[in-house]
Amino acid sequence: MPSISRLTDPMFGSPAVLAIFSDTGTVQRMLDAEAALARAEAHCGVIPAQAAAVITEVCADAGVIDLDALAQAAVAGGNLAIPFVKQLTAAVARRDAEAGRYVHWGATSQDIIDTGAVLQLADALHAIDTDLLRLGDACATLATAHRATPMVARTWLQHALPTTFGLKAGGWVDALRRDVTRLRQAANQARVLQFGGAAGTLASLGDKAPAVAAQFARELGLDLPALPWHAHRDRLVAVATALGLLTGTLGKMARDLSLMMQTEVGEVAEPSGPGRGGSSTMPHKRNPVGCAAVLTVAVRVPPLVATMLAGMVQEHERALGGWQAEWDTLPQIVTLAAGALRQLGDVAAGLEVDAARMRANLDLTHGLILGEAAMLALGGRIGRLEAHHVVEAASRRAVEQGVTLRVALAATIAANPAHAGLLDDAELDRLSDPAHYAGQAAAFADAAVAAWQALRAV
Amino acid sequence: MPSISRLTDPMFGSPAVLAIFSDTGTVQRMLDAEAALARAEAHCGVIPAQAAAVITEVCADAGVIDLDALAQAAVAGGNLAIPFVKQLTAAVARRDAEAGRYVHWGATSQDIIDTGAVLQLADALHAIDTDLLRLGDACATLATAHRATPMVARTWLQHALPTTFGLKAGGWVDALRRDVTRLRQAANQARVLQFGGAAGTLASLGDKAPAVAAQFARELGLDLPALPWHAHRDRLVAVATALGLLTGTLGKMARDLSLMMQTEVGEVAEPSGPGRGGSSTMPHKRNPVGCAAVLTVAVRVPPLVATMLAGMVQEHERALGGWQAEWDTLPQIVTLAAGALRQLGDVAAGLEVDAARMRANLDLTHGLILGEAAMLALGGRIGRLEAHHVVEAASRRAVEQGVTLRVALAATIAANPAHAGLLDDAELDRLSDPAHYAGQAAAFADAAVAAWQALRAV
Amino acid sequence: MPSISRLTDPMFGSPAVLAIFSDTGTVQRMLDAEAALARAEAHCGVIPAQAAAVITEVCADAGVIDLDALAQAAVAGGNLAIPFVKQLTAAVARRDAEAGRYVHWGATSQDIIDTGAVLQLADALHAIDTDLLRLGDACATLATAHRATPMVARTWLQHALPTTFGLKAGGWVDALRRDVTRLRQAANQARVLQFGGAAGTLASLGDKAPAVAAQFARELGLDLPALPWHAHRDRLVAVATALGLLTGTLGKMARDLSLMMQTEVGEVAEPSGPGRGGSSTMPHKRNPVGCAAVLTVAVRVPPLVATMLAGMVQEHERALGGWQAEWDTLPQIVTLAAGALRQLGDVAAGLEVDAARMRANLDLTHGLILGEAAMLALGGRIGRLEAHHVVEAASRRAVEQGVTLRVALAATIAANPAHAGLLDDAELDRLSDPAHYAGQAAAFADAAVAAWQALRAV
Amino acid sequence: MPSISRLTDPMFGSPAVLAIFSDTGTVQRMLDAEAALARAEAHCGVIPAQAAAVITEVCADAGVIDLDALAQAAVAGGNLAIPFVKQLTAAVARRDAEAGRYVHWGATSQDIIDTGAVLQLADALHAIDTDLLRLGDACATLATAHRATPMVARTWLQHALPTTFGLKAGGWVDALRRDVTRLRQAANQARVLQFGGAAGTLASLGDKAPAVAAQFARELGLDLPALPWHAHRDRLVAVATALGLLTGTLGKMARDLSLMMQTEVGEVAEPSGPGRGGSSTMPHKRNPVGCAAVLTVAVRVPPLVATMLAGMVQEHERALGGWQAEWDTLPQIVTLAAGALRQLGDVAAGLEVDAARMRANLDLTHGLILGEAAMLALGGRIGRLEAHHVVEAASRRAVEQGVTLRVALAATIAANPAHAGLLDDAELDRLSDPAHYAGQAAAFADAAVAAWQALRAV
Repeated sequence: MPSISRLTDPMFGSPAVLAIFSDTGTVQRMLDAEAALARAEAHCGVIPAQAAAVITEVCADAGVIDLDALAQAAVAGGNLAIPFVKQLTAAVARRDAEAGRYVHWGATSQDIIDTGAVLQLADALHAIDTDLLRLGDACATLATAHRATPMVARTWLQHALPTTFGLKAGGWVDALRRDVTRLRQAANQARVLQFGGAAGTLASLGDKAPAVAAQFARELGLDLPALPWHAHRDRLVAVATALGLLTGTLGKMARDLSLMMQTEVGEVAEPSGPGRGGSSTMPHKRNPVGCAAVLTVAVRVPPLVATMLAGMVQEHERALGGWQAEWDTLPQIVTLAAGALRQLGDVAAGLEVDAARMRANLDLTHGLILGEAAMLALGGRIGRLEAHHVVEAASRRAVEQGVTLRVALAATIAANPAHAGLLDDAELDRLSDPAHYAGQAAAFADAAVAAWQALRAV
Repeated sequence: MPSISRLTDPMFGSPAVLAIFSDTGTVQRMLDAEAALARAEAHCGVIPAQAAAVITEVCADAGVIDLDALAQAAVAGGNLAIPFVKQLTAAVARRDAEAGRYVHWGATSQDIIDTGAVLQLADALHAIDTDLLRLGDACATLATAHRATPMVARTWLQHALPTTFGLKAGGWVDALRRDVTRLRQAANQARVLQFGGAAGTLASLGDKAPAVAAQFARELGLDLPALPWHAHRDRLVAVATALGLLTGTLGKMARDLSLMMQTEVGEVAEPSGPGRGGSSTMPHKRNPVGCAAVLTVAVRVPPLVATMLAGMVQEHERALGGWQAEWDTLPQIVTLAAGALRQLGDVAAGLEVDAARMRANLDLTHGLILGEAAMLALGGRIGRLEAHHVVEAASRRAVEQGVTLRVALAATIAANPAHAGLLDDAELDRLSDPAHYAGQAAAFADAAVAAWQALRAV
Repeated sequence: MPSISRLTDPMFGSPAVLAIFSDTGTVQRMLDAEAALARAEAHCGVIPAQAAAVITEVCADAGVIDLDALAQAAVAGGNLAIPFVKQLTAAVARRDAEAGRYVHWGATSQDIIDTGAVLQLADALHAIDTDLLRLGDACATLATAHRATPMVARTWLQHALPTTFGLKAGGWVDALRRDVTRLRQAANQARVLQFGGAAGTLASLGDKAPAVAAQFARELGLDLPALPWHAHRDRLVAVATALGLLTGTLGKMARDLSLMMQTEVGEVAEPSGPGRGGSSTMPHKRNPVGCAAVLTVAVRVPPLVATMLAGMVQEHERALGGWQAEWDTLPQIVTLAAGALRQLGDVAAGLEVDAARMRANLDLTHGLILGEAAMLALGGRIGRLEAHHVVEAASRRAVEQGVTLRVALAATIAANPAHAGLLDDAELDRLSDPAHYAGQAAAFADAAVAAWQALRAV
Repeated sequence: MPSISRLTDPMFGSPAVLAIFSDTGTVQRMLDAEAALARAEAHCGVIPAQAAAVITEVCADAGVIDLDALAQAAVAGGNLAIPFVKQLTAAVARRDAEAGRYVHWGATSQDIIDTGAVLQLADALHAIDTDLLRLGDACATLATAHRATPMVARTWLQHALPTTFGLKAGGWVDALRRDVTRLRQAANQARVLQFGGAAGTLASLGDKAPAVAAQFARELGLDLPALPWHAHRDRLVAVATALGLLTGTLGKMARDLSLMMQTEVGEVAEPSGPGRGGSSTMPHKRNPVGCAAVLTVAVRVPPLVATMLAGMVQEHERALGGWQAEWDTLPQIVTLAAGALRQLGDVAAGLEVDAARMRANLDLTHGLILGEAAMLALGGRIGRLEAHHVVEAASRRAVEQGVTLRVALAATIAANPAHAGLLDDAELDRLSDPAHYAGQAAAFADAAVAAWQALRAV
């Protein structure tokens, strides 16, 4: 809510997940829950088999529910399920008056709303898993292809030392791998039936309650929890937090990419396409449109996760605000995360990498980023602190005189008789090549890809 | 987003404000901005008067825009205005090819999106002001009617001392008065034109820029700011924070009312109506449906305000995520606040107050809540600490022996020769009547109502 | 920060966890990391064994670091590790000049800060696990003892149907069980070494890097990740989200308990003690002081979790704000969660349960809460909707005439010839006893306790 | 909380504001409130003048309170004021037993805690106002000095069009001006006495209550509200939101500056100093240490504001969690905002601006950023859409052939006979100079500075 959002749905959402959480998607899953309940009750002899058959038939098509009337009627009762059951009962009764008496038998509104939401979540998390694997594969491909492609590592947004683009991509892959695992765990734990009746005791079903509950869960392919969880929401909130972590990972990646796409940096570019990232008044621009959508999601989701956590403080057997706060919030989190994933999947799959520009940027500081290499080469001989002073002096000299670190280092060493002969020309040459100072970058990238492949192989 | 929300819109939104932020409401205000821009430019001789006339004509009806196509096309460019301008230009050109050349002249996408949003906000805040006055009036009526209606004050959810229902309602009134003032200030400051062109310099309009900007603002009844504010969002965020404060006030009121509606308390009831607050399986219930909606909003809005604040950290002349995060968030804040206001307005206007139950609840602790009255009566004679000990002992005795504080106090005093004659029967009688110990409650209620009336009189 | 908080530390924190995150606790773990690094490097022949021995010795006592000087010096460099290493190097050099040259060899500031934080987290999560088991045990005891103790279930803060106190406690137990599992998983995943050097490549250690890293991890009992994670924070943030979920569970429990402690409800009471929950001016009060602390934490933690999630969007190889935002936030989350846990542990262990009051409250609605029992008894014979109408009419009659539902039901049925003989006296008697309508409450409580015991048995 | 934070206080706080919120600063203001209350009561004849004199004397020095004992004792009662009053009473009684009987007369714990907090806020907001004016002055100086210094405007982190550094600084100035106004309004509204006694009725003072309250407020220089506000917190929360808006402004500025400080951009630099922004292993670096601290604050404050808003939903006459959640949160917000302000004040006052680099960066796109200038020059003759196509084609050509836009434009026009003679050489020259296409940048900067000066002149 509110309706303005439909205009922005395609920008920030994923079509598959938007469909799952559409009005129809929501109502259909509530109907699925009602039908499964009826069949379970028929199976246990609580209601006539004929009634269950009719109910199942009517519930097969969401068109049976008048959505506008549903929305309006929900105001008085404070939830969707009350008018939903009324409409459904009327529809079933039109087909078979007797069957109409058995709609929603023994259940409470929240049983249907929650079970419907659980079914939506399961479907959405399945779609997200698929997109997550696609994104991870794309990043793994980048990590392998560029395992040894030199680029500058940046800390505090300043050039630090050499690294490789493969290590950067490897960091993304490894984070995505953890996201896959966390989301699968959260998804598994959230696949639980909600079924407690008006007070969470299933009193209305008498002795048949356990059997009906077990069969109800089986009908829907859900787990049966130890007890109803009307006011204990942690399983759903855990999905929200796992998605919050995912959007953090995606946001970090989009932050990296958009910084690398800056006009002054130019190391990567989002894939182009008709109208994609163009500007109406600046025809030369190639905007990071996908990254912007991801970063938008990364701003929006963390507070929504806080809403879900805050909503957990619920009153007694049914909440006054905390539960209701989930209704629009959880779908927003899921849809936004799925949308960001889709956007970044497109960006990663079509990413244009400019290795030459990466290499050129390495030289922007005239070798100063190799100060550590020099410092460590010297440190073994004159101690870390003394080496630090030499390199600091050489760096200052390089900046002041506009020369490379190699030149400044030679001069600085030469200026101090105590340091005579510290580094010869060959050593200086080696120290001046950033590709020689990428350390374990390629090995780390390989390790991340290997771990990803292991996950994929399962 | 996502579409599920339309089902819950009537529950958590206000119809008037939902219409303002509907797709049509959004697009119409963007059209209004384009038409005003064209007229301003014609007025300043930048574009032909005939073009402005045609543009104005075409912009009069939001039906000119294909909303579904707009939503889909927005993905590639990352905002609504780019495809919006394309559709509008085509529509104008169909009417008058020459006029088509002047659509959106010199403006940038964000000029139109932001100015449209400013117009929406202005309309919504006007509607909110009206509802806020209605709610305040209802509360003022309660405060006056019940200025001296005794009830118990509760701290830590425990009975504390007597107060009056009028003082409780007076607290609501006084808070609402501050909300009115804060929201009007925020609304005034947010009524500003956005107009800067592609880089915020209006370079595309040359020397005519100042005149066009001034006339553009005049056409829309908006203020002209010192400079464009594409990446400085505080005015809009200040509206969000003012609405956040409003939902805090409403939430506090709903928390009070829902606690008072508890079965065990029963001091007030939401107005009843067909189907309102009923339960499908517990026909005797009268649920605080309005309060639940308000409390839901009070859980959801604070994190959304955090989103707006976090989004302020924007990059250079146009943001990468921070601005876009506002698009759905600000409308949600406005709509939710407006919805909570409408719900609570209905509740307050029809609130059923059970003064007898309030009086009865005062006696639940058998006079123990009058301990302070006794303590202070004694304190003047034997010191505060000693009096504290006496009353503590009497209270313990009352609880242990199941007698009233009056009885226990007499016994406690009698038991200590040093305290002989401390309180006589008349004093004990007076101390035992809670209505005699409401202090300034009525006067405070009157003061709050007087301040409210002063606001209303302006 | 700021220092005011030390005054409130005991109220909202747990002593054990506060000590872990104290200044000394923080610095000691950074020293532990430096010592382990030195030993690992000596083990791999990177630095002399003698240097490692001296470094280890000096690092054994946090007193070596001047905390005030550290805090002041951190401002210029923007983190604690830079001045920390300077102080440590000086201290080591005072003992052994040669050893001083090898302090912090090949590491970067963040390696030490993060590894220290990982060690703190591990210790804190161990303490939390212990307290969590203690709280769960107390709740399991309540669930078993009161598996069949009748009380009213409340939905929307209104009396709904009968349940048992054991089921309510069982709900708490089951949620706590999931918290234990989630926190253990998060703790396991967060036990990872941070070691990447200035750019995350370990370039400064050349070919010895992998061996040093592996030994470094071994020295500290931590896992070695596939690659450094300077700008990928999900493991730590996942701990924050798991703690956020825990505080949600605790908050829900505290909400339940504080509502049950209301003067009008009186079903439970926090354990009393000298000065505990007393009021300076209302000597009779027994405030829910422990619950208030827990509810405070439940308000504070969700937004702090949002901070952690928002901070994940980090720049390149080291962040500008996102990482630094963790420094005070994560310790606050851990300490607040631990404090709430300790408070609620005390409350649960000493909880006073008033079963008689629970039973008495069940009768407050004169049997109206048994409407569903009646409705279902009737539903099998005259259909659910018709039964609903009968019970609704009877409920209305009971309220209007001030009689019990049993009486009203008999009269309502008698008034409609078509319903003659629907329920006889024996049936009416059975329907009027709430203890007969608690459904699966006891069985659900048993199931929750069984699952808890299974967890404890591992 | 927890104590770790003292290590980071200097990094993220301001010394003046940290002192105000230190333990001593907190306790002293609670003492000030008690002393003022005693004097007011003596003035109205409620307590002996001698008692007030002694109380005032004892309250003059915070050393009278044992802070550690206070913190420990607060746990049992759930707030600081209860043990605080006990300690104070004992200290006064040691001096004068009679006076000891009148300490805290008629007040409740929250009266003292809240009034103390109001006094802290007032002091802190005064210090913040001073620093805010200092920062605004520095930015105004930059805006004026660089009103016409050309630089590139960046949208989506891509080069857009020319602007001036003065306009960028002018945007900061104008936002800071609004912050000053908002904070002053919020500060004024929050300068209110809290005084209601145990239930908010001042019953304990009988008829003298109004006079005592008025004098109490006068003693402290605070306003007297219409009624006590124990459970209505909007005035304090409004300060939090205003500070949240301030940190948004500061964060935006720090984001701009840190992006401009990137190695690849190099347009500005934070002032240098001994050890400032240095890296232990990369001696050449100049890190944006001040900006990092500001950005950290900008990540942390928005969720803390959400905490304050969420805490507003308070129960009846005293809250269970919502009020207590303010205790550490509001001081953190104030201290963090003040710290960010101080950091950015230092950065702005000593900012190194490299105008030559700004000019050089303008040419990085070989004139492509002047596409709009060309488009508009052409648009007047061949229509906006046709001009768009020409410039798009020329831009493509420039990129593909590695030539400037000027060259490509000439070639593109020449290639189309229909466009012969569209732009001559003089026009092409003018279009190629970015300084000619900064539009109203300087005028906007001037307007912002003028508005700032008007504020300063008051």
